[in-house]
This record gives sequence, C-alpha cells and structure tokens, in this order.
Amino acid sequence: MFDSKIVPILLSSPDDVSGLERMIDSGEINPHDIKGLNISHEGDSYARAFSQVAYATMLAKKLDSTVEEVLRTMPMQGIAGVAGFMTPHIAVFVRSEVEGKEGKEKRMVVAGANTREFLPEEAGTMAQLEGVAETVRALMKEAQISDPKDVHFVFVKGPWPTWDQRADAQKRGKKTVSDDENVIGQYSRSASALGVALALGEVKAEDLSQEAFMTTRETLYSNIAHCSSGGERKSCSITLVGNTTKSVSKSIVGHGLLEDGLDTDGVKRILKDMGFKFNCCPTKKDQARIEYAFLKPKTAEVSEIRGYRHTMNTDTWLAPYWWLVEKAGPHALVGSVLGTTLFEVATGFEHQGPPGKPGLAVIAKAG
Amino acid sequence: MFDSKIVPILLSSPDDVSGLERMIDSGEINPHDIKGLNISHEGDSYARAFSQVAYATMLAKKLDSTVEEVLRTMPMQGIAGVAGFMTPHIAVFVRSEVEGKEGKEKRMVVAGANTREFLPEEAGTMAQLEGVAETVRALMKEAQISDPKDVHFVFVKGPWPTWDQRADAQKRGKKTVSDDENVIGQYSRSASALGVALALGEVKAEDLSQEAFMTTRETLYSNIAHCSSGGERKSCSITLVGNTTKSVSKSIVGHGLLEDGLDTDGVKRILKDMGFKFNCCPTKKDQARIEYAFLKPKTAEVSEIRGYRHTMNTDTWLAPYWWLVEKAGPHALVGSVLGTTLFEVATGFEHQGPPGKPGLAVIAKAG
Amino acid sequence: MFDSKIVPILLSSPDDVSGLERMIDSGEINPHDIKGLNISHEGDSYARAFSQVAYATMLAKKLDSTVEEVLRTMPMQGIAGVAGFMTPHIAVFVRSEVEGKEGKEKRMVVAGANTREFLPEEAGTMAQLEGVAETVRALMKEAQISDPKDVHFVFVKGPWPTWDQRADAQKRGKKTVSDDENVIGQYSRSASALGVALALGEVKAEDLSQEAFMTTRETLYSNIAHCSSGGERKSCSITLVGNTTKSVSKSIVGHGLLEDGLDTDGVKRILKDMGFKFNCCPTKKDQARIEYAFLKPKTAEVSEIRGYRHTMNTDTWLAPYWWLVEKAGPHALVGSVLGTTLFEVATGFEHQGPPGKPGLAVIAKAG
Amino acid sequence: MFDSKIVPILLSSPDDVSGLERMIDSGEINPHDIKGLNISHEGDSYARAFSQVAYATMLAKKLDSTVEEVLRTMPMQGIAGVAGFMTPHIAVFVRSEVEGKEGKEKRMVVAGANTREFLPEEAGTMAQLEGVAETVRALMKEAQISDPKDVHFVFVKGPWPTWDQRADAQKRGKKTVSDDENVIGQYSRSASALGVALALGEVKAEDLSQEAFMTTRETLYSNIAHCSSGGERKSCSITLVGNTTKSVSKSIVGHGLLEDGLDTDGVKRILKDMGFKFNCCPTKKDQARIEYAFLKPKTAEVSEIRGYRHTMNTDTWLAPYWWLVEKAGPHALVGSVLGTTLFEVATGFEHQGPPGKPGLAVIAKAG
Repeated sequence: MFDSKIVPILLSSPDDVSGLERMIDSGEINPHDIKGLNISHEGDSYARAFSQVAYATMLAKKLDSTVEEVLRTMPMQGIAGVAGFMTPHIAVFVRSEVEGKEGKEKRMVVAGANTREFLPEEAGTMAQLEGVAETVRALMKEAQISDPKDVHFVFVKGPWPTWDQRADAQKRGKKTVSDDENVIGQYSRSASALGVALALGEVKAEDLSQEAFMTTRETLYSNIAHCSSGGERKSCSITLVGNTTKSVSKSIVGHGLLEDGLDTDGVKRILKDMGFKFNCCPTKKDQARIEYAFLKPKTAEVSEIRGYRHTMNTDTWLAPYWWLVEKAGPHALVGSVLGTTLFEVATGFEHQGPPGKPGLAVIAKAG
Repeated sequence: MFDSKIVPILLSSPDDVSGLERMIDSGEINPHDIKGLNISHEGDSYARAFSQVAYATMLAKKLDSTVEEVLRTMPMQGIAGVAGFMTPHIAVFVRSEVEGKEGKEKRMVVAGANTREFLPEEAGTMAQLEGVAETVRALMKEAQISDPKDVHFVFVKGPWPTWDQRADAQKRGKKTVSDDENVIGQYSRSASALGVALALGEVKAEDLSQEAFMTTRETLYSNIAHCSSGGERKSCSITLVGNTTKSVSKSIVGHGLLEDGLDTDGVKRILKDMGFKFNCCPTKKDQARIEYAFLKPKTAEVSEIRGYRHTMNTDTWLAPYWWLVEKAGPHALVGSVLGTTLFEVATGFEHQGPPGKPGLAVIAKAG
Repeated sequence: MFDSKIVPILLSSPDDVSGLERMIDSGEINPHDIKGLNISHEGDSYARAFSQVAYATMLAKKLDSTVEEVLRTMPMQGIAGVAGFMTPHIAVFVRSEVEGKEGKEKRMVVAGANTREFLPEEAGTMAQLEGVAETVRALMKEAQISDPKDVHFVFVKGPWPTWDQRADAQKRGKKTVSDDENVIGQYSRSASALGVALALGEVKAEDLSQEAFMTTRETLYSNIAHCSSGGERKSCSITLVGNTTKSVSKSIVGHGLLEDGLDTDGVKRILKDMGFKFNCCPTKKDQARIEYAFLKPKTAEVSEIRGYRHTMNTDTWLAPYWWLVEKAGPHALVGSVLGTTLFEVATGFEHQGPPGKPGLAVIAKAG
Repeated sequence: MFDSKIVPILLSSPDDVSGLERMIDSGEINPHDIKGLNISHEGDSYARAFSQVAYATMLAKKLDSTVEEVLRTMPMQGIAGVAGFMTPHIAVFVRSEVEGKEGKEKRMVVAGANTREFLPEEAGTMAQLEGVAETVRALMKEAQISDPKDVHFVFVKGPWPTWDQRADAQKRGKKTVSDDENVIGQYSRSASALGVALALGEVKAEDLSQEAFMTTRETLYSNIAHCSSGGERKSCSITLVGNTTKSVSKSIVGHGLLEDGLDTDGVKRILKDMGFKFNCCPTKKDQARIEYAFLKPKTAEVSEIRGYRHTMNTDTWLAPYWWLVEKAGPHALVGSVLGTTLFEVATGFEHQGPPGKPGLAVIAKAG
C-alpha cells in the first residue's frame, strides 16, 4: 500500500533549499520518497535553472547520487512568475510504501518521472506527444490507478528550445517546428497536453496529428493537464496526482473547471464534488482541510471577461507579461474560497481545457 | 434638492469619448450636471493627458466653452493602469437640482472641483495640503453635507512635477520638495491625503507639518481619501461622494476598510453596514443593487499577506510595475463579492488608511 | 522655383508645440509651407496620438482650419521611442515657392501627403501598397523630380489596426490580413515599403502580390523607404525628400546603406558621395554642414553583429523592447561621425533594404 | 617574474562553461593561474548567481576543490545586462610565474581576491570601504606594483542585501544603511569606489565618512574603480589590472576618461597615451593590437548629452532599465574605434569619476 502527501515549503529565494533540507535531515521526509518537485519562484527563466541546480545539488547529497543523475531522473518543474499575492514555494510530491490493507475508499497517490530527452527538432512534435502519453500511462500503472477518471492532475514541463539549441538543430540540417520562438513554445505545450489527453482517453489517437496542434485547441483538449515549457528542459518532466484504493494517504484530490476567472461558485462546486458539505461558503473547519491546489488561469487566452474587455494582451506596459499578470486575479479569488494563498498557479492554455475556463485541482484531508 | 448618480461607461481606448457623447446627445446626461470624470484606461501617463484632452474637447462643444476652460475647471482624474480583469471605463459624477422635499433618509450626493494650480515647488508641501483641505470643505458645503461622517469617498489627483517643471523651478531659483521623482510623488499624495484628513477631522491641524509627510503615515491618515498624482496636473482635481438628506438620489454610498487584500468578509461587512441584508453571501438581487465602487489596494505597501511574503516589490520582472500588479488580486476578489468588475481601482497608499488595509467605497441603489 | 528646408525643434514633452509655434509667430516658418512633421518623442503609442492632436490643434489655429482637417491632410509621423542618447524633437518639412532660375545643380526639395484612409481589412494588403505607390508618384511630380534616383528618403507611417478596429472589421464580416497583431504590423510596413519600391522602380509590379509580403523581404525591397505603423493612423502618411534642379534650397540630401550597425566607414562614404571632401574623418567644418539625418537600424533583424550574437531579441528583460534598444547603438555611432545627435531613428525593417544593413539619409548644406 | 593575460571567451548562456573548460583541458589555461572571472551575460540577477555556481562547479573539479571553496575564494563578478551590440562572454584574468629578468618596460599584471564577507548591516558602510581598501593594497603588493599610478583598472562587485538578508539583520536588532533597496545599492557601490580611491591615494582618509557617501560623489571619486553590487555577494570580489616591470606579459593596460558618451576623440587619446601612433583613426593594424576593454558609461547619471536631454531616466517604458540602456550607445561608439565589440560594459557611477564622464581601460598588445 501507498502513503502519499504533497508538502508545500516556503522559499526565501529561488535557490533556497533550506526548508526541504531541514525536513529531510529531521526525518520528516525520506528523500527516496520524493517523486517530484514543483518549484514556484520569482525571477526569470535563468532563475528556474538556478533553482533546479540548487535542489539537485542538495538532493544528490541526500540520495548519495550526482547532480547530473538527479537532474536527469527527478521531475523538477520550475514555475517562474509569482504575481500578486502568490508566494515563492515548492510543492514536494511524497510517496512511500506502507503496511496496510486495501479498503473501498480511494485516497491520494502521487507519481512522477521524466520522459527521454527530446532533440530540439522533436520539441512540439508527435514524438513529444507520444513520449508524454507513454510516461503518463507508466505513471498510472506505478500509482496503481486503472481508471483514468481517478487521475485529477498531471503537470508537464516540456522543452522550449533556446536559440543555441535551435542553432544546433540547424547545424545538423534539422528544422524545428517553427522559426518563431513563441510558436515553438505553444507547440511544445500542445504536444504535452495532447499526450496527457491521449493517455487519459480524453481524445482519440486518430484525431491527433502535427496539423492538429493549436488549430484544434478549442475542441481537442485535456481537462487534467497543466503544461508549461522552458529552455532549461530537454525531457518532459511529469507529475501525476490521483486517487486509488491502494493508498492509505490522509488526503484526497479532486478537480474541475471554473466558468471564468471570477467563478467563486465553481470553486465551491469542486469542493462539494470532493465531499465537502457546506451551505453557502466553506467554514473555517472546511478550509482547514485544504492542503494544496493547482490552478491554471486561462483568462488571457480570451480577450473579455463577463462581457467586458480586459487589457492583459494589449496594454502598452504589461502586454509582454500577460502570462504573469493573468495569475494574480484568479489566485486571489480561489485563495479567498480555499482560505489559503499557498498554492501553485501556472500559465499554459494550449489544448488544456476549453478556452477561457480555468482548471483547478484541490488536495484536501479526506473528510 | 439634489439628484445624483455615478454613471460608468466603457471605453474602447483612452480617447474614446463616444459613449458619454451619446448620452449627452440623447439627453440622458445634461453636460452642465457633470461634476467630475474619473477615467480608468490602459496606457502610460501620456495616455492620461491624451484622454483628458479628448474629453475636454468634446465637453467644450457641449458646454459652449473652450478646451482650456474645461481642463481648468472640470475635475478629470486619469487613472492609467487597468490590470488583470479590470476594464477601461469612465465614471461620470452627475448632480442636478430637482424639485423635492427633504426627508429623513440620506441619499447620495456628488461634488467636484479643482484647486488652484500649484507651482512645481509647492507640490507636496503644506500649501498643497491646505489647498486641498479648503476645496474639500467647499465641496462639502456645496453638497450640503455638514457632518464629515457623511463623506464616504474623496478622490484627489494632484501634481507630480515632471523633469521640465522641475527644471523650471530650478531656473527660478526654487527647490522642489525632493530631487527624487518618486519622493515628490509620495509627498504630493501625502499632502492630498492629509488635506482631506484635515478637512474631515480625521487628523488635527497641530500634528501636520512638512516633516510629518511620510514619516507619520502609519498613524496620521484619512480612511476616506484616495490619492493619486500625475505629471499632467498642476492643480489638485477633487471629487467627493457622500450622503445627505438634501438628496433624492436613488443611490447611497458607504465605505470601510478591509483587513487585507483577501478579506471577502470585509466587503460583506461594508455592504451590511449600508443596509444590505444577506446571510452568508450577497444574493443576485443584492448584487443587482451595486452600481459602482472605488477600491484602493494598499497591498504592495506591505511585503507580506497572511504571513507569506509576496514579490510585488522585489520581482526582477515586475517590481517596477508593483502599482499596476497590486490592483489585479483585490479587484478580482472584491468583484466576486459585488458581482461586477466594472469599478475603479487606484493605487496610492500614503497617509490613506492604515498600512496594508485596502479602502473600499461602494455605491448602491438604496434598499 | 522651390525653397526647402528641414527644421529640427526640441520638445520638452510629446505635446510641447511651443517651439514650432514660436517660429510660426515670428515668421520664420510660414505654416502654409509645412509639408510634414516627423515627431520623435518619449512615451507609448498613446503619446503618439496625443502629440499629433496637440500639433493639429496648434496648426489649425495658424492655418485657420480645424483639428480634424489638419489631422486628415497634414502628414504627421509619430515615432515613439527615443533610446540612449536620442532626444525628443520634431523635424518640420518646409517648402515654399520662390523667385529664381533653374540651374544645373540639384538642391533639396521636400513633399508630403496622406493617402486615403484604409479599412482595417485593407491594412497590409495590395490596396495599401497601391495607395502608397500612387501617392509617392504624385509627390515626385509635385516636387518636380522625374528621375527616381533623385529621391533619397521616403517615410511612410501606415495603419496598424488596434483590437477595436479589428473587432469592427469582424462585425462587418471582414477579415484582417492576420489575427496576430504583430503580423498585421509587419504586413502594413511591408505594403508601405513595397509601395515605395514600386513607385521608385526598385521592384517590378509583376513580382508583387499578397504572398510576397514578408516571404520575399530578403530580395524585394526599397533602399529609400523607412516605414513604421501605428494604431493612431488609418491613412498612410508620407514624406519625401529628394534633389531637383527646380530647387534653390541651401541643402542637399544623400543616402546609402551601412554594412552593419557599427559601420563608421559607411557613414563617411555617404558623406563623400554627397560631395564632402575629407581625408579620414569629417572636420568640424564638415560637421557644421550637417543639418539632419534619418537612420533605420535594421540590427535586431539579424541575431549577430560582426560574428558575435547579440541578445536584443532574446534577453529576458528587454526582448519585448528590441525595437527601442536597437536604436541606441547605431544612433551613437552615426552621431559621432555626423557630429550631432539631433536626428531621427525609426525602427522598421520589412522590405526596407537588405537584412542587417542600416539605411541612412543625410541632409547637409550644399558645399 | 609574472606573465599575465586577459582571455575573453564567448558564452551561449549564463551557465555555459564549455569554452573555459576546453581551454583548461587543452592546457591553454592552467586553472591555478586564474585570478578572477568577469562574467557578462543576459538575464536577471538570478542568472548571475546561476552562472557563478556553474563556473564554481566546473572549476572545483579542475582545482580539486569544492564548489563552496571556489565561490568563497575566486573573484567572480557577474555583470547581468548585455544591451545593444554587446555579446555575452567571460573575461578570464590569468597570471603565472615564469622565468625572466626584470626590464625597464612595464607590462600588464592582474590580481584578484575577495574581501571577508560583510553582514547585511555592514554593506555600504565604512567597514566595507576599509575592507576594500585593505584588499586593494594587498593586491598591489601581490602584483608587485608600488606606484598607484600603475594601477589602471579595479573592478569591485560588492554586496547588495536582498530582502531576506535585510530581514535577517532586523531580527538580530541591526539596521542596514537604509530601508530603501536602491539606496543600499548606491551606498555599497560608494563604499567600494571610495575604498579603491583610498588605497590608490585618490582621496584622503580624513575626507571619508559615512556622511560622505553619495553627498560628495561629485568631488571625491576614483577614476580607476568600476563598482557594481549584487544580492548574490556577501564579500567584495575584486580584480585589479596594472603595469609593472616585474611582468613579461605581451600586454599593457591604459586608461582614461571620456568627456561624454560620444567622445570618439577621447578613446583615441587613451590609445595614444598607451603608445599607439596613428594620425586620425587607428589603423586595422592598430585595432589588431586591442585585446580587451572595460567601459563604465556614466551617461544616465546626467540628464543631458551635448546640450540635449535624453530620456533614459524618464521614459515611461524604459526608465526602470536605464542601467541597461545606457550601455548600448557608448559600447557601440567605443567598439567602433577599438574595432571590436567583445569587451565589458558595467554600469555603476557612484564616486567613480566625475559625473557624466565615462571611464575606459584598454588592454592591448605592447607596441
């Protein structure tokens, strides 16, 4: 039987490994039980790589491994860009084997792995899609989840070839999926999302093709996938959260879509679907059960909200930072219902649910 | 007797005057009844001036006046920076004289005026403070409000001398309150806020001095003032909203402080103080009564929220835009309770309420 | 016979019309002789519109016209973005009819006009190309230039439909050339540049088509056109500078290409082509003859300079502002040879000369 | 006897250590001879720390040391912000002991060391000033330079306490020199610059005090110091370049001030002071002797250049990035004279030469 938990730890800077190190040293977390790290922090894309090297360096010591090996095998997903009330932190995905007997109730289980490394010219192609699908299927098996409906959250951080990686492809006579850096990123996230969708049965294999990327994003999508991409990754790093009767975890996971970035009722509905019982608003006691959440805003993907245009994509100042700014509003709103601001918000919209509808997964103590 | 209303109108760009022009042409709004315009729009500080010139040009025609005269006399308060789910719009402050009999119930009244123009070296000084206090007192009188407790909102847009205005002062052998542009802006907003506080009896005259600016901001402040500053202004432009028995308006105004930028309960408490009766959350019917709101975030003024640090002042990307980013979260949260996103959010924290506590004024149909 | 000059005037802010107004009032410039205004200033795209309204308002008075009429007929080209050592200023294009006899020597002549207004769906199409070509031909005729080789500079500021203009097209069932705002801008500048190239015989009509836009930019181009686009324009605003025997102007114009953004020798070669005689560097006396210049950087169009990569398109901070940053280096370099920093630098690379090679036009006192 | 050289190596990203590693592996550079690394790269302040960890990790292997030890002892100076035509690269400071006999001619010598670590409350104080002065004196001794006139360049990268370091000081009941992050950075660079000035006899000890920081920057300064600060540093990292008869290096170093950021003649004068003989401009052969340079722009420190205002400190877009933008112009100009763009440009103006006058040090093959 499994035990599983997700442990959020505050960061004082992208390379602050002290919190996790303390929990490992005190025995609270066995480093061999760590199945993945989602690292939300301030700073730019170099801060992501910086952070991951710092964590790999610390974990290599604890695991008697090497920095390279940890970087290769440990799913580490850097999420640069904490905006508004968000706070820099990591979420540690922990799973251990424990004694116990399978019951009827499903409890949370986590799993994580990296796919093989993709060449720059493979980024955003069917090859990446298939690599992701294969790894998601393997993770379900590892987590002893047989029904895709029991998977509530899959995070994929995939490659986004930088100029030197693209130059390398060119030297080898290969072409990346586009010359436009933004388009390559969109394709990479599309490949990741559709890979998850394929593995979970949300789309059919025959509908998938290179041509389907982006063009079908309003009809072919995964409601479970949260996908990001970054120059620091060559493989796809994947973490998965679901429920299974093979787990004795104290936690459960649920998920759902919000109608838009202001949909308080949607957040409440997701909680109720998870078994929360409250009338109008969650009580303090309900809120005390909330352990973590994963939110995908999807609100800069559309240009209006509730009939009024917003300027996230057009403002002369902040348009280049729409992906940062769009996090602040939904984070505050979801946080006000959940009673905590300590959760992840990662942008990424391609083939990840219907346009304009945020996706939310919630981890809570079982009722 | 007065009638008063605040009319929000959507903008397609900073210089879009078509909505208000249509309402004037159709007779819905008598241009002579316009006591002020708060213009929330995208773009930079030049967009503010651009917008105000566009409105002055249109209004000069309707009022048989000149652009210069309208710019001089009409309170027009440009609020550049709509972030997150905010939408560009203007709020028109309308007041007319109507037949009617004074009752017991207090209803909303609005008033507005510009102070005299201040020299660059007067910006952020006691002279500005006194000019603001004097004009606020005059506006109360004009609005027939005798008890300062009946004033719920005062917006002041004051000067922020640009480099050429500062150079002009220097040529005349005068010194501005600081060489540092940021500091001058802070002093200007301090002068405006303390001017309001003095007029409304929130502070005592003997506690006020040039030295008190900024240094006493945690103890001397106005809970009513929302203050901004801009290079396009030389006078202070002031709008005031309160309740009086001399008004037959269908609307009332209320206000209060939130504990922090996530304080949903605080928004509800303000509504209840205004006479709303609901149990846990406002009903759709309650929300239908909401007409407008003015929100001051105050959240980047402090570096933490609910015990967790945020990065609005320190992020390598968005720190220069803290004043824009800090609007997005509170706007979404307040909007979710009020049931609308069409309201004003203006940054400005100096001497405007206790540190970290947002100020909110709400306009609603009387119950 | 013509007289012509280009008069640069410093600005203290985008709406500072005082310098030109003073020169009109003193009789130095007859407002009816103004053929165009290139306005280089700080601030965002709204500052451009703001500036043009300010100039139209001032000029309407001087010309006994209306603001609308001036905006419609006067070529006013707003160039937001002064970077590095650049300084905000306007260049006034002045031409008058004078007594005189045609000689053998060619002297400078200027001309300017706006095309008809284009619908949003026409922006960046063959319709815009043809409109530009037609107007350029008319301007040559007006300037009494018969040989296209005598045209040394054509500036076109064309439309760049904003979201509301695009929404308007959509409502009318029309499609703009792309859904991507950046692509529309590129197409608009392509249409303008190829329109100039067609009129000046730099390309053949049979090679031009909608499909040719951007795809052929490395082979089909104008070395004379400098093209920009902006949401504030619906027509294309065009100014043209050339030499003709019909002018008694004290100035001449010349132009050429630089090999790259560091090509000091190229600047010197252009001066020598114009008749300057110096050995290694222009003397102070040579530099005193320089009156103005127009520079198009073209350096962020390519990712390297002299074998080393630059980061103008990839830096995590400034990549969104490549078009601003790329001006600073070439401006300093060209300014150091010319002995003045008071000249125009406008980004725009599409079909405007070979990739990576800056275009420079210089106005100087005839030798 | 010494041999010394400065080796620039291109970077493909902040963590690209491959170039230096190859030169170490091939024997071109003995890792024990490395006296310092100046790393100029793209990205934000986290990229600086990222880069330094990558170099420390590589060097630890080559030096049979630990990452911590390399970080502690090796002067590594991260210069984030390559703008315009600048290219990411490192400059390796190499010095070895060789056989040879002291001659009359002075040749280049380099030296480098880190001071002790300073507490957050010591940053920007006399303690930092004294620590820097002491280390500079030690480096002169190590480099066998007795006359301060033979020191032509000292780079100091000092601390800039981040919010968590400031919080740490506060917890211990200590105060940093200011609450304002910008001011602390200015004080840190002031302390470093005045420390260099003191060691080199450019200022007198009796004129130095905490109160002198910033207030006397127009009169008390070092023409040799280039000072930067960063959150990744606790000690001051110092590299020094001078000439000595004890060196058989093929290179020499010279330095001087430019009148302003456009002063081509100033660059030529510095070369001539170093013994270059050319008439008007350096020949290709002269330029082939140039090996490296260090430039400090100083141009955003003043608001005008050659009588015209620039907008580096006031532009609504780029004012927050003045320190990046100000590099582009002077870099292009100096590069055009030197015939190379591969050199360092680091911002930092406090007590580092007279206001507005750039400082330039040049390394060249001895004539």
